[in-house]
Amino acid sequence: MRILVQKFGGSSVADLECMKKVRAKVLAACEEGYKVVVVLSARYGQTNSLLERAYQWSDEPDPAELDVLLTTGEQESVALFTMLLHDAGIKARSFLGFQIPIITDDSHGNARIDTISADKLREAFETYDVLVIAGFQGRTPDMRLTTLGRGGSDTSAVAVAAALGGDTICDIYTDVNGVYTTDPRMCKEAHKIDRISYDEMLELASMGAKVLQIRSVEFAEKYNVPVRVRSTFTDDPGTLVTKEDLMMESVLVSGIAFDKDQARVTLCDVQDRPGSAASIFSPLGKAGIVVDMIIQTASRNGVTDIAFTVSRKDLNRALDVLKNAGPECSHIESASNIAKVSIVGVGMRNHSGAASQVFDALYKAGINLIMISTSEVKISCLVAESDLEMAVNVLHKEFKL
Amino acid sequence: MRILVQKFGGSSVADLECMKKVRAKVLAACEEGYKVVVVLSARYGQTNSLLERAYQWSDEPDPAELDVLLTTGEQESVALFTMLLHDAGIKARSFLGFQIPIITDDSHGNARIDTISADKLREAFETYDVLVIAGFQGRTPDMRLTTLGRGGSDTSAVAVAAALGGDTICDIYTDVNGVYTTDPRMCKEAHKIDRISYDEMLELASMGAKVLQIRSVEFAEKYNVPVRVRSTFTDDPGTLVTKEDLMMESVLVSGIAFDKDQARVTLCDVQDRPGSAASIFSPLGKAGIVVDMIIQTASRNGVTDIAFTVSRKDLNRALDVLKNAGPECSHIESASNIAKVSIVGVGMRNHSGAASQVFDALYKAGINLIMISTSEVKISCLVAESDLEMAVNVLHKEFKL
Repeated sequence: MRILVQKFGGSSVADLECMKKVRAKVLAACEEGYKVVVVLSARYGQTNSLLERAYQWSDEPDPAELDVLLTTGEQESVALFTMLLHDAGIKARSFLGFQIPIITDDSHGNARIDTISADKLREAFETYDVLVIAGFQGRTPDMRLTTLGRGGSDTSAVAVAAALGGDTICDIYTDVNGVYTTDPRMCKEAHKIDRISYDEMLELASMGAKVLQIRSVEFAEKYNVPVRVRSTFTDDPGTLVTKEDLMMESVLVSGIAFDKDQARVTLCDVQDRPGSAASIFSPLGKAGIVVDMIIQTASRNGVTDIAFTVSRKDLNRALDVLKNAGPECSHIESASNIAKVSIVGVGMRNHSGAASQVFDALYKAGINLIMISTSEVKISCLVAESDLEMAVNVLHKEFKL
Repeated sequence: MRILVQKFGGSSVADLECMKKVRAKVLAACEEGYKVVVVLSARYGQTNSLLERAYQWSDEPDPAELDVLLTTGEQESVALFTMLLHDAGIKARSFLGFQIPIITDDSHGNARIDTISADKLREAFETYDVLVIAGFQGRTPDMRLTTLGRGGSDTSAVAVAAALGGDTICDIYTDVNGVYTTDPRMCKEAHKIDRISYDEMLELASMGAKVLQIRSVEFAEKYNVPVRVRSTFTDDPGTLVTKEDLMMESVLVSGIAFDKDQARVTLCDVQDRPGSAASIFSPLGKAGIVVDMIIQTASRNGVTDIAFTVSRKDLNRALDVLKNAGPECSHIESASNIAKVSIVGVGMRNHSGAASQVFDALYKAGINLIMISTSEVKISCLVAESDLEMAVNVLHKEFKL
């Protein structure tokens, strides 16, 4: 039994016409001899309108009850879509998260999957050719409904593929043809990548290339599920996200990501003593503010500058927190007209010189680097937002993408 | 632990303002020291709009998937309402049908409850003061979602009260103050009944007094659950539906019901031989047409007239069926300008003379009887629709209601 998992997002199932296109994809897979698991999101806009209603009812909706409400979105999608399959003569049935079951912890609104049993799905394939699964949802061991957080349907799909095991492939359908070397709106030379490693995909996803939910890539890597990112609206084979191989390692840089949602805070002349850093970042952490890049300059005369970046929406709150709870310093500077550009590639693990190549290329283009940070498979530079587009194009050319 | 079950229909939970009124009813019961089970329907119009969508998607929606779709209506209600309870500081949680569980057969769209366990509800009352249950829904032993048919939330409420046992009372909230001796729009003297027996309520319900779903009354009778019919919008104590007692039997007639949805078919000069009746009613049964009153005149010259009534919407279909599959007869007559009026009362079991009192009163008012049928606790007469209002008023007066 060859099983294919196909996941379709909210815009792919927005209305009857869209759902008929999705049905064509499912029928094509059936004709190729696959048993098909279809994982669906709520219809486009549905989750937002349910959220809106919840906040009309309560300023602070109970998270467990909010999950009871939100899960109706996917429930509606799978019921309607399965009706369409029946009309085409396909033997199909729907599965809600609790029916499989997908068992999660009780972090309502952002639950993590603990276990999935594939037994009921395998059994159902004795009767049905297509199983239509509600994404984004699970249940606690105590039978309460949970949701997996925004984009959680990707994770549902990968997790179901992992549970089915064998050679089950997971196709994530979206409105683009696959993963690109960079955003085509930013760089005309951008082109689709045919294969990419899980680690590279993780870096690209965390940089705002919103093709796949990060947690679904972690899941795919952990259980070694091959994931294909494809378009609902074309027949392109898409991008295969899979484990690293020699061919991938021979390529230094796979893609260029960027992120405009950056703001920088600099605390000037902080007393350089143990605990200074903690006195900045622990109050920010308690306030739920995620800090990205952090730089501390070398100490001079017993004082140092500490700079970091946050999401723009968090900038004002971060400044408030630091005024009340931060360490002594001469003054605090901030800027939000900045952006981050990153090159990503597993090849960097074994090849040196990528960093200097980046700096050199940007220097020659007259682009000033504000901050730099690196990981094993990524080099990120903070630049003025006005320099971003040029930076992306310069690096795209430099690494011959 | 004193437990009260309160059921609210779709118009009682239509929007935020309505739900706040319902919350006040629940808070009042809590303050009286009750642990409360609230059973909710889908918000007004929600089930119809889901049905409408299903029929946009498919001409013949799969019944099992239709149930997956329809159950979202009550799921939304209980989530939103429980949020409101939280905001008022009430310890509450929602229960969907499958979580209790309410286990039904697999007649999707019209499932019958097989078993309800009250264990999880009793356990939940150790933590919570109010449990908010989605009406109208259950699950099969195999974990598939089912619905109990139109008005099924009444049945959910009574069934949960039966499962909780003890002295659990079930309050069914609606938009009227209780059960009336007859429709106040038809007879100015109509007034609320304080107490009524299950059998009388069944006769009234089946006659179109749409206060309670028939099946819920059967359930209440079987498990001896006291049911109170009350208004969401007043503090009236309503009507108590309970088992017969001596006081009820001393009253000859409790109420007068009527039904305008009647059409009559008469087959004239049918050959009077074994099988004639079967040749009329078995093809109608196969076509799903429900026949109400049936009259056969005495045979004369080997032929007889057979007359029966059906719902007006079924009249043309019934005539078609009989033309193709009915017995030989000289001709078929039909009429739809007729109506049925009935007196209902358990007192009739032990008192004779009610029938003659009815005929006499109608005769004196100049009302012609077209057909008559009787049961242990009911006498029904078919009259011209134009005579209906007078018939109701005459009988209301005659039996001193």
